[in-house]
Amino acid sequence: MKFSILARDGSARRGQIQLERGIVETPIFMPIGTRGSVKTLERRDLDEMGAQIILANSYHLYLRPGIEFLEDYGGIHQFIKWDRPLLTDSGGYQVFSLSELNHIKEDGVYFRSHLDGSRHIFTPESNVTVQRAIGADIIMALDECQPWPVTRDYALDSLQRTTRWAERFLEAFNTSHPLYGQEQVPFAIVQGSVYDDLRAQSAEDLMELDFPGYAIGGLSVGEPKEDMYRITRQLGESLPQARPRYLMGVGTPLDIVESVAAGIDMFDCVIPTRNARNSTVFTRQGKLQIKAVRHSRERGPLDPECGCYTCRTYDRAHLRYLFHVNEFSAMRLATIHNLTYYLDLMQAIRESIASGVFEELRQQVTQAYREHDETG
Amino acid sequence: MKFSILARDGSARRGQIQLERGIVETPIFMPIGTRGSVKTLERRDLDEMGAQIILANSYHLYLRPGIEFLEDYGGIHQFIKWDRPLLTDSGGYQVFSLSELNHIKEDGVYFRSHLDGSRHIFTPESNVTVQRAIGADIIMALDECQPWPVTRDYALDSLQRTTRWAERFLEAFNTSHPLYGQEQVPFAIVQGSVYDDLRAQSAEDLMELDFPGYAIGGLSVGEPKEDMYRITRQLGESLPQARPRYLMGVGTPLDIVESVAAGIDMFDCVIPTRNARNSTVFTRQGKLQIKAVRHSRERGPLDPECGCYTCRTYDRAHLRYLFHVNEFSAMRLATIHNLTYYLDLMQAIRESIASGVFEELRQQVTQAYREHDETG
Repeated sequence: MKFSILARDGSARRGQIQLERGIVETPIFMPIGTRGSVKTLERRDLDEMGAQIILANSYHLYLRPGIEFLEDYGGIHQFIKWDRPLLTDSGGYQVFSLSELNHIKEDGVYFRSHLDGSRHIFTPESNVTVQRAIGADIIMALDECQPWPVTRDYALDSLQRTTRWAERFLEAFNTSHPLYGQEQVPFAIVQGSVYDDLRAQSAEDLMELDFPGYAIGGLSVGEPKEDMYRITRQLGESLPQARPRYLMGVGTPLDIVESVAAGIDMFDCVIPTRNARNSTVFTRQGKLQIKAVRHSRERGPLDPECGCYTCRTYDRAHLRYLFHVNEFSAMRLATIHNLTYYLDLMQAIRESIASGVFEELRQQVTQAYREHDETG
Repeated sequence: MKFSILARDGSARRGQIQLERGIVETPIFMPIGTRGSVKTLERRDLDEMGAQIILANSYHLYLRPGIEFLEDYGGIHQFIKWDRPLLTDSGGYQVFSLSELNHIKEDGVYFRSHLDGSRHIFTPESNVTVQRAIGADIIMALDECQPWPVTRDYALDSLQRTTRWAERFLEAFNTSHPLYGQEQVPFAIVQGSVYDDLRAQSAEDLMELDFPGYAIGGLSVGEPKEDMYRITRQLGESLPQARPRYLMGVGTPLDIVESVAAGIDMFDCVIPTRNARNSTVFTRQGKLQIKAVRHSRERGPLDPECGCYTCRTYDRAHLRYLFHVNEFSAMRLATIHNLTYYLDLMQAIRESIASGVFEELRQQVTQAYREHDETG
């Protein structure tokens, strides 16, 4: 992997992550394909919207179709027929949020499958094996994603364990090899909840391990926005300039421009896809609740400036009707639109950084989204 | 409307229905878009598979979005952005199968909406108004679709009423006009359950009314296949040669080739779409239950001779996995494939009639589907 910064505008950076399966232009948004596919979409939809990298989930893929299966198949790219970059999270977050009876020991996290109650363990070492078998291009170190709120004592304890796990993860990574001939790149995850000094300590400890990329975990888990923005700005300053920074699980369009302003390069979030399925639509003028009665006879596209298939084809009234009569295609058409909006936003962000007008774009997005931010 | 027969092979006919919105090549299969859209699909999918005409449902559209709405919008084509031919059934079938507390009087059918219990009536006259407002290119006369089994007495009573309704329908049709400038064409529906003499009487009475097209209703409602095939053959002989014949709600690939052999020109059925959503897939080698374990590691497409997006892109193993993890796109990808299979089958039927080898194709389909027919 090679990361190059092509332009700066304030703390915002425009860059490129060169991976063997393709170039990822940053700042980038990664659509979430939990089980390998982005819900309601197929590969050509991702092609059409210009998705450069997608995210899949190690926990889910580990349980189904399973690691032995994926190894046999030649990895996730072969299985889902996606030949561009893909990132897997470690599955740690899902172990804590989905699985039952999970508990943490020093060696790893013990859990029962949410599907059948079967017992499993993720250690940093086994997690490398899992992500090697999946074959993602960027893989995330196993961490404990702390809930919010959490006491300072627990946060300290947990981030120290996460650092020890990162060390073991890196060791296992360095003594193993990709299974399918394509380079894999490990990222570390900074924890520390909303405590500035703990975040600083976590970042410092992980930077000593010298990972090729750094993620910020444990934000967007319910904490006040001001905490999230403050921590992001702090880490935007302290994380290595020459490495990509990935703010996990964020966020709304407003969160994204704020975080880009703080120097973040990579994002993933369920908001555009999950909200689409709940009939909330993002436009350059702000959010729409497309099921609302006021859209029932509205001609014209969701967003006149959007070039997605949905906007090229259907009126707002029709999309509203499809939701109203519970047609699956409503969720799909809204998903196509929302992800196109997000990817277009990232493209506009990249261009604005290159031409030194990011601040203007940030103001536009802020104006369109400020009032709606909390419903994200 | 102009109907031309271009070729014959035995009783099978290849023809063209010329409508103002386009030519429909027969024998044709019409994908069902109950509420205006084919479930899980969007317009470009229908374009890609070469759908020439789709079917929508008057009962559903009458309830939602409603007739006043559609009139205001300029008709269904405007609303769903479909500019090729569309056929609406009268809604009679749904009144009997979906609505509550329906009862039939001489003037029409009284029913309560299955959505909110509100009271409604469809008379032959109001049904013309409804289908004029929807703006379909072919519209079906209001009939009573008899269940199976039904006594001879009831069947006689009912078909006589259906004939009187057809007369009133035609009168109302002839004294009204299309609302959106495009010609609409009314078809009558032959009833009479599985009683040969009643079918003959129904056909004869309706032929006196001289409709531009004739449908066979009340089959594929649970009666034995031999009854369905016998009645279809009988009507294939007695209905006017120069008019299109439409066998409603049929069927499996086997039913289709048998009915084409009897001189049927048009089909609609939920089988390809509903079965797709239930993970049953049609191929040139017969049906597949794609969720079955035996497909779990199978590479290659559903049908190597199929050119649909699903077959061009994904392995059987992947489609099986998508069903297994309940991804919506599984239903969609299977729907794309099944409808493509059906439309390709119709194309092959048309070509085989033109080149005088329909019997060979019929044997191939029979061989592939005979054993599986009952599960259709």
